[in-house]
Amino acid sequence: MADRPASIPAFADLPNARYEIPAGDSRLRAVCNTCGFISYVNPKIVVGVLATFENRILLCRRAIEPRKGFWTMPAGYLEEQETTEAGALREAFEEAGVKPHLTALLAIYSVARISQVQIIYRGVLPSAELAPGPETLEARLFAWDEIPWDDLAFPSVYWALNHHREVGEAALFLPRSNPPGETGDARPQGL
Amino acid sequence: MADRPASIPAFADLPNARYEIPAGDSRLRAVCNTCGFISYVNPKIVVGVLATFENRILLCRRAIEPRKGFWTMPAGYLEEQETTEAGALREAFEEAGVKPHLTALLAIYSVARISQVQIIYRGVLPSAELAPGPETLEARLFAWDEIPWDDLAFPSVYWALNHHREVGEAALFLPRSNPPGETGDARPQGL
Repeated sequence: MADRPASIPAFADLPNARYEIPAGDSRLRAVCNTCGFISYVNPKIVVGVLATFENRILLCRRAIEPRKGFWTMPAGYLEEQETTEAGALREAFEEAGVKPHLTALLAIYSVARISQVQIIYRGVLPSAELAPGPETLEARLFAWDEIPWDDLAFPSVYWALNHHREVGEAALFLPRSNPPGETGDARPQGL
Repeated sequence: MADRPASIPAFADLPNARYEIPAGDSRLRAVCNTCGFISYVNPKIVVGVLATFENRILLCRRAIEPRKGFWTMPAGYLEEQETTEAGALREAFEEAGVKPHLTALLAIYSVARISQVQIIYRGVLPSAELAPGPETLEARLFAWDEIPWDDLAFPSVYWALNHHREVGEAALFLPRSNPPGETGDARPQGL
């Protein structure tokens, strides 16, 4: 078995792989020695929503790893055969029991080290009623000065909160991207 | 081997799979009977750029399937450990030999049937010089009334061209999504 090049992520679940450039391809891929399966690992899409009710922001405290016990906006992996909007709404319902109205795309963040693209919408909640699901310890609406800055789950939660604040009441705006110099690898100040 | 549920795409490259819900998961996944590999198939991200030089729009005629011989904006699969912006720029260089300046996010399109999310930027070219790569038969800059509408490669090319036109000179705009009722499955009128 060839050694895994540093440019390819480890495949913990593909125990008997070699690494080669398949015919017609230009990059090294993991290929199963047993059955020939070519693992075209692709970046993963996270969809989420920064949802508000009367200027208070919905955050959920995670009941699962990673970052169990820390706060995030509802977000999770886009599933197969799902649009990005449908995925964001599904996550909001699964994690907080809410059905926001999506009003705009807030941001696309890339966390390249872990090959993740996060597509975060803005949403407005029809009421303050929350019903956390099994992946959420608690869900709450926070005024800006109540946000648990020291207990946010991920850098992108910090980015999304600040970008949401920055956009304010603007009806038209360009969606945000990673803050300059931020890769998502290190936690921003305060996290 | 369990039959493949209709909700799961076929895994042509995983020849000996069963379908089950792994522990801690909530959806059916393909699991290799030989080695236990769980195929978490995720939606794939396409990144691209609608690039212009002095109001003319860059299109490339595809040298590869699918839709060989038809016209598209430069676009392709985002690679591992790549940001969406870097991926769009890489595709522009690979397919047309250009280095556009990305000015805004034009659109996010979801083609749910094939689990694809397309992230399309607007870009401005520094010159009219084009240098098509091996995946491109020819690259050209088209005025609006020269666009080969009958020979576009994909519905999303048609969407992106029209959304680009609709946005016009606006500095601030909300990125577009699928046109109402359009899933990307059927070709729009004129294609």
